[in-house]
Amino acid sequence: MARKQGSHSDITGPKVRDAALRLIAQHGYAAVSMRQIAAEVGIQAGALYNYTPDKQTLLYDLMRGHMTDLLTAWSLADQKGGPMVRLEAFTRFHIRFHLPRPDQVFVSYMELRNLSEQNFAAVEAQRREYEDALEGILRAGEAAGVFAVPDPRITTMALIAMLTGISNWYRAGGRLETDKIEAIYWDMVRRSVTA
Amino acid sequence: MARKQGSHSDITGPKVRDAALRLIAQHGYAAVSMRQIAAEVGIQAGALYNYTPDKQTLLYDLMRGHMTDLLTAWSLADQKGGPMVRLEAFTRFHIRFHLPRPDQVFVSYMELRNLSEQNFAAVEAQRREYEDALEGILRAGEAAGVFAVPDPRITTMALIAMLTGISNWYRAGGRLETDKIEAIYWDMVRRSVTA
Repeated sequence: MARKQGSHSDITGPKVRDAALRLIAQHGYAAVSMRQIAAEVGIQAGALYNYTPDKQTLLYDLMRGHMTDLLTAWSLADQKGGPMVRLEAFTRFHIRFHLPRPDQVFVSYMELRNLSEQNFAAVEAQRREYEDALEGILRAGEAAGVFAVPDPRITTMALIAMLTGISNWYRAGGRLETDKIEAIYWDMVRRSVTA
Repeated sequence: MARKQGSHSDITGPKVRDAALRLIAQHGYAAVSMRQIAAEVGIQAGALYNYTPDKQTLLYDLMRGHMTDLLTAWSLADQKGGPMVRLEAFTRFHIRFHLPRPDQVFVSYMELRNLSEQNFAAVEAQRREYEDALEGILRAGEAAGVFAVPDPRITTMALIAMLTGISNWYRAGGRLETDKIEAIYWDMVRRSVTA
């Protein structure tokens, strides 16, 4: 059903997702109840079902939404140019996208096991699409003789793990500015794929 | 109280830890009850308290035990020699140690948030000790002019994330032998720290 702009649900929908993300990141999907999520938003448990049919759908929406945002943002950040230019764009994009989203990173990794088979397949396909973007850049660079990457698939997984791992130690306001972190990681990425 | 060798508890203790690890990896700490763990082992819920005073202690024992095993194994695997030799030893050791332990890797990362403050501090100190081992190798290499590592602390975190990430995609019996995986990752590690 179409909803009017500015209606109550326009405000409450994002609040539900934010509350669910925060609670799942803190306690884990299996330990969080719909009742807790409703209480966190400040609505009745029954009212929560206006926004999502069940907890599985809520988890799926969070994880799918995160991947959709990522894929959309990358399609905008991707550069025309050679493999080196595109690899730098990917590296800086990946860091900038994920640093402000530690809860999404944590939940997207940790709660894969709690997705239904069908929902898991859909999220995995999105994840694969993102990995394929990097793998394509590496293969193009290998073909052009710019990179020396004997196994582009493994290198893809290695680089994504390295870059995503920043979320494990980064704290806003810490020792290093984001620009400096990007420069250090880009330097490592570049060297790791060149002979 | 000292127990006789071969007593029932010698067998049941490890079974309790194995069951707890498996269940926590699958459902998350907050969602797993002592009753479930007892059922998984095949003992009465009351009997479980002969092996651990509470669920927090069980989690702590799992995470602390994992880090103790890691630190002990590294002290045996560490090589005498120059920074390049030691970095290769660390890289291959880290992969070989973690690949057969996906549940430990997952729980050690995911359940840090569920440790009590005191237990968290103890596990963090062990984690820091392990990171410092790698950072020391990088600093020695930088001092000797063998490595070009402008920020050894960041490089440490980057390399550990990259190597530990293998657990996310590795499946025993998959496309690649462990030896081949080690070789590919060592190549990337070596190149990422040399100019």
